[in-house]
Amino acid sequence: MFKSILKAAVIVLCSSFSVYGQAQLPVYLDDTKPIKDRVEDALSRMTLEEKIGMVHAQSKFSSAGVPRLGIPDIWMTDGPHGIRPEVLWDEWSQAGWTNDSCIAFPALTCLAATWNKEMSSLYGKSIGEEARYRNKTVLLGPGVNIYRTPLNGRNFEYMGEDPFLSAKMVVPYIKGVQQNGVATCVKHYALNNQETERHSINVNVDDRALYEIYLPAFKAAIQEGDTWAIMGSYNKYKGQQCCHNQYLLNDILRKEWGFQGVVVADWGGVHDTQQAITNGLDMEFGTWTDGLSWGTSNAYDNYYLAKPYLAMIKSGKVGTKELDEKVRRILRLSFLTNMNKNRPFGSFGTEEHALAGRKIAEEGIVLLQNKNNILPINLNKTKRIAVIGENAIKMMTVGGGSSSLKAKYEVSPLDGLKRRIGSQAEVVYARGYVGDADGSYNGVVSGQNLKDNRSAEELMAEAIKVAKTADVVVFVGGLNKSDFQDSEGNDRKGLGLPYNQDKLITELLKANKNLVYVNISGNAVAMPWVNEVPGIVQGWFLGTEAGNALAAVLVGDVNPSGKLTFTFPVKLSDNAAHAMGDFPGKDGEVTYKEGIFVGYRWHDKQKIKPLFSFGHGLSYTTFEYGKVTADKKELTADDKITFTVNVKNTGTREGSEVVQLYISDLKSSLPRPVKELKGFEKVSLKPGETKTVTITVDKAALSFFDDKKHEWVAEPGDFEALIGASSANIKTKTAFKLR
Amino acid sequence: MFKSILKAAVIVLCSSFSVYGQAQLPVYLDDTKPIKDRVEDALSRMTLEEKIGMVHAQSKFSSAGVPRLGIPDIWMTDGPHGIRPEVLWDEWSQAGWTNDSCIAFPALTCLAATWNKEMSSLYGKSIGEEARYRNKTVLLGPGVNIYRTPLNGRNFEYMGEDPFLSAKMVVPYIKGVQQNGVATCVKHYALNNQETERHSINVNVDDRALYEIYLPAFKAAIQEGDTWAIMGSYNKYKGQQCCHNQYLLNDILRKEWGFQGVVVADWGGVHDTQQAITNGLDMEFGTWTDGLSWGTSNAYDNYYLAKPYLAMIKSGKVGTKELDEKVRRILRLSFLTNMNKNRPFGSFGTEEHALAGRKIAEEGIVLLQNKNNILPINLNKTKRIAVIGENAIKMMTVGGGSSSLKAKYEVSPLDGLKRRIGSQAEVVYARGYVGDADGSYNGVVSGQNLKDNRSAEELMAEAIKVAKTADVVVFVGGLNKSDFQDSEGNDRKGLGLPYNQDKLITELLKANKNLVYVNISGNAVAMPWVNEVPGIVQGWFLGTEAGNALAAVLVGDVNPSGKLTFTFPVKLSDNAAHAMGDFPGKDGEVTYKEGIFVGYRWHDKQKIKPLFSFGHGLSYTTFEYGKVTADKKELTADDKITFTVNVKNTGTREGSEVVQLYISDLKSSLPRPVKELKGFEKVSLKPGETKTVTITVDKAALSFFDDKKHEWVAEPGDFEALIGASSANIKTKTAFKLR
Repeated sequence: MFKSILKAAVIVLCSSFSVYGQAQLPVYLDDTKPIKDRVEDALSRMTLEEKIGMVHAQSKFSSAGVPRLGIPDIWMTDGPHGIRPEVLWDEWSQAGWTNDSCIAFPALTCLAATWNKEMSSLYGKSIGEEARYRNKTVLLGPGVNIYRTPLNGRNFEYMGEDPFLSAKMVVPYIKGVQQNGVATCVKHYALNNQETERHSINVNVDDRALYEIYLPAFKAAIQEGDTWAIMGSYNKYKGQQCCHNQYLLNDILRKEWGFQGVVVADWGGVHDTQQAITNGLDMEFGTWTDGLSWGTSNAYDNYYLAKPYLAMIKSGKVGTKELDEKVRRILRLSFLTNMNKNRPFGSFGTEEHALAGRKIAEEGIVLLQNKNNILPINLNKTKRIAVIGENAIKMMTVGGGSSSLKAKYEVSPLDGLKRRIGSQAEVVYARGYVGDADGSYNGVVSGQNLKDNRSAEELMAEAIKVAKTADVVVFVGGLNKSDFQDSEGNDRKGLGLPYNQDKLITELLKANKNLVYVNISGNAVAMPWVNEVPGIVQGWFLGTEAGNALAAVLVGDVNPSGKLTFTFPVKLSDNAAHAMGDFPGKDGEVTYKEGIFVGYRWHDKQKIKPLFSFGHGLSYTTFEYGKVTADKKELTADDKITFTVNVKNTGTREGSEVVQLYISDLKSSLPRPVKELKGFEKVSLKPGETKTVTITVDKAALSFFDDKKHEWVAEPGDFEALIGASSANIKTKTAFKLR
Repeated sequence: MFKSILKAAVIVLCSSFSVYGQAQLPVYLDDTKPIKDRVEDALSRMTLEEKIGMVHAQSKFSSAGVPRLGIPDIWMTDGPHGIRPEVLWDEWSQAGWTNDSCIAFPALTCLAATWNKEMSSLYGKSIGEEARYRNKTVLLGPGVNIYRTPLNGRNFEYMGEDPFLSAKMVVPYIKGVQQNGVATCVKHYALNNQETERHSINVNVDDRALYEIYLPAFKAAIQEGDTWAIMGSYNKYKGQQCCHNQYLLNDILRKEWGFQGVVVADWGGVHDTQQAITNGLDMEFGTWTDGLSWGTSNAYDNYYLAKPYLAMIKSGKVGTKELDEKVRRILRLSFLTNMNKNRPFGSFGTEEHALAGRKIAEEGIVLLQNKNNILPINLNKTKRIAVIGENAIKMMTVGGGSSSLKAKYEVSPLDGLKRRIGSQAEVVYARGYVGDADGSYNGVVSGQNLKDNRSAEELMAEAIKVAKTADVVVFVGGLNKSDFQDSEGNDRKGLGLPYNQDKLITELLKANKNLVYVNISGNAVAMPWVNEVPGIVQGWFLGTEAGNALAAVLVGDVNPSGKLTFTFPVKLSDNAAHAMGDFPGKDGEVTYKEGIFVGYRWHDKQKIKPLFSFGHGLSYTTFEYGKVTADKKELTADDKITFTVNVKNTGTREGSEVVQLYISDLKSSLPRPVKELKGFEKVSLKPGETKTVTITVDKAALSFFDDKKHEWVAEPGDFEALIGASSANIKTKTAFKLR
């Protein structure tokens, strides 16, 4: 294979060998040198083919390193909620390893609902350790797409409807992961707010909504979190695929924000070699982009950034400047991750991680309604508890798309309750209804059979019978991870509960009014029976420790402190996107006509009372807010302003409250929301205890994005700071002025 | 899953998190601490189940680490000649990865034939880099079993018949590999000298032969090479399986030699839990030891050192002392390998490694016979070269058992010759015969079809026709990697060449006397036509660069300098084991009746002239030896003695000679070989150049193992130092005395 350079080569070989150990390290391997220098040194040693090899996948989840130079392959892993099991090299089937059963963490919706940055740190640290132990270079997450409509099938993977909350919660997650020498890959950049036609839909959005609503979490991920990678989304923006999008990647991400990291295409998100070269993408991954019709033995050679790119360079159609830039970024990623000798070793499937997941789950569960203090269930007075509903036994760590996991274990709500309650009360169960028993993602835990051949009527009759005999009924329902529910690839078909659950709940209420409804979902659902059901709990997808966390809240071991991160509308048309009639778009176009008025911003503006508001969440104790004060009446654009409020626990047990600061711009040259979240603080209070909460903001909290000037503007004038327990429950406010 | 320790745990979690980065590393993760302390610290943190998890396989090639503590899994890889491709988790089928095509290095028989320790270093360094890049913890090799009979199917993986040569050559290989943070696992310990009934045969051998012949290479691997692991062999010794053998593992390996490393069972070599516990084994790997009849979901749980061991501990039948010892050794291995942050990153499939393999191949090829200077082929006078024989086109990196590889490429002898000769002469090819075309290991390179439907007569006729028209005929024949040839699992059925090659050669000689026979094999073969064939070359299995290396020797770019590491007998009964009539044993027993008289020791003693002797190998130049001198006439047991001899290149081209020192004990209380190799030095000489070679030995070179005293004895008396170009070609000698 080689020319007759053998003799010279052997001399080099032998001499380099004889000094092995003392030999001077090349710069790229010398970690005392700056990464920039190491990158340039490595780049200068690479062949054109080695560079091309780096910018596209070689298997479902890996891309090539440079074997000649000792630069390792890069291994990606789904997903945001746990480390995906190994799959075969070029098939999605699991590889059958027995050492890859992970801890499933709560879905990010639940993490966001903790409104606790420490929980985000803990989450990131824990899942980062899991990724590191499994030798993954890049964790494909977290997801921070904004919750625009309750029908989006992937909302459960995201952090809700508010850009400020998402931005604050994503940063500690990133830092937690990356301290393990594993990169986060924040996704899906950008405007991937629905699954319908996700590969082709072109999103039309005005610049104000883009900058004020859809981008802030990404910007924070980059500028505050320093994420080392970001994932392009499937959809289009301005007619260009987001994975190779001049506006989003070159103009905003790199030029405006100064992103130094790697842009990874969502799997199959690349559609054009020329655009992929010039429009800011670094790495192509995929599954159906392998153009098998090309007929080569290795399908990955046909990726847009594989042989087609090489051919364009060799023919002189494009130069190598862009390729070198891509490779520089990928090399930098390697030096920060798989070539960072000092990264820790991680850990996997540990009790510590399970407990972290449980803690996050317990803090994220939201008590939505608690009439007559039906919760917590008083085990001293309760002899029999009827648990009803398929979601009490259904495995929720499997399914839902790329976030599907092989969990080390998953405690179902029924098992969690039984384990907690033990002999303190009798727990009886009835399934009540059968969901998609034949769907692919319908694992059922608790040793129950998947199949149930009884009719819906028989199942309901059994449930009613069981409910009648109980002191309290806990109905565990909601959505699941099947297609067209909380699952990647499709959107929901409506706001209502599937499987005729509304009817079942109505019938159960007739049998027993002491009903607690636990809603398992990552989305809002309609609750036509809301006034009749005394207890309502938002139970998310909670992962490995799901049942234990739910039980702890239901019986009161844990005092709930989660707050909604998105609005529950009464009906679908109360949601902005649906009110404006542009979901899921048509003829390949969707226009965000509601602009910046997403979520509570819409409800506030239109004065539409929601079923449950953004920021809402009850406790087993009560809190009293004092009067908010500001440290100044006026501030300049360079100032900061600090708001102070006392919060007192006026109930009889310890609990945590999320104190929320909303800013209201009383008069503005451009339309503004009634109020916007600009600060929050979670405080834990003993019975009778008072704590002083201070929240400081600067002009960023007062600014809007002026689309004509294309810049953020803090317009002088009058503002109000509103302090509340939810967006619909403002407790105290104070006025101030920007000069 | 956990008791109500949640609160406490969360406090620990949060506090340990908040100090992340500043937290003091536990001792086991602190690489400034001595490994012994780190081992004890890690051990003290481990549960019984975690310990059990470490001592047996979890997949075909991996064993569990401690995910909770961040201790990585251990990944083993075949084999000694290149890094095996990935296989599925629990199947031998390849996993279909596209990043695992390795450089195939020459088989160890060839490496040993270089008689050059620098080549052994280069080999170890290169293959170690390949293993490291592929993230392998342990390389399953090298093999140093002694060549007792030419019928052993695995001889090609070993280093020949002489314990001194094997010992000297194995040490630099080990050091070369291990400087990459990859452990060698020297195999197969011990007495695995045949494949017939390899899982059950009980080897009877006297202590003298055990210590003088079969163990020295292992002892050197441990005491000089510091190998971090060793592999137990399949066979029995003293009625006990060698993988859990009191005598070999506890008494000799650990007590006599002080081995600190890990004993790994050959795959499926464990047969008894109690013995595996107490008799020195550390890790069980396997493939049919999974006892599927036990009926659990994970077959590895049924390994002897898995649940059965755990059950014995839990029932109190055994304690945990042995388990702790095993785990200590495995932890030590991890700290030296996959937890050594400072190990280099390796490299894989590189040109540098291919060139290293080629250099080793070129130095290992042995010119056995060269009448009328038929070699090198003079391209100025040669118009047409007939290449004949299946081995000229047959892929030899595939097959042969666990050493089978997926090579990045393999240059066949035919391709190598064509590439080298180019338009300087015409190269015509005829296959001549067809081997096991339907066997499983019969890849054919050079774009030739595997199948050839012509009859043997037609093939021979074609070959004769081609030979008649040529100036010189290069017949590339010998053995291949099919079952019952040079292949694991079976022994050869006889000394003769397969596929009627002798007949073909005889016919070719009639057509053209200018015949060069290239013998591709890792074993001696019979050559009934030896006197008629002017040129004979031992071509081994040469790996990726096979054809290029062979071509370089055949046309004279490289001057051959390899020397045989085992004796070619004229007929099978000339070999000691066969002469004594105890191969392959019977009734499950084989007795090494020849004792220490293995290989040339037998030929010397019995005065049987071999076909080609141990140490034999010609050059394209000639060497003249001066008279050997000693620096003293007498030495004491504490002295050293140095022998000096001048060697001159008396020919017209540069070449290398291996100067061999044999020691002869003229009188001894116990029978001794006529002479034994105790030193060698390879020197490169320009035409006309003379170099002085000095070789120093101490009493070890004079000693025998006294089986009554069970110790090495250097008996005072008269000795001779013989300096030769082979064991049968002693050039000069000198007498000396041990006082």
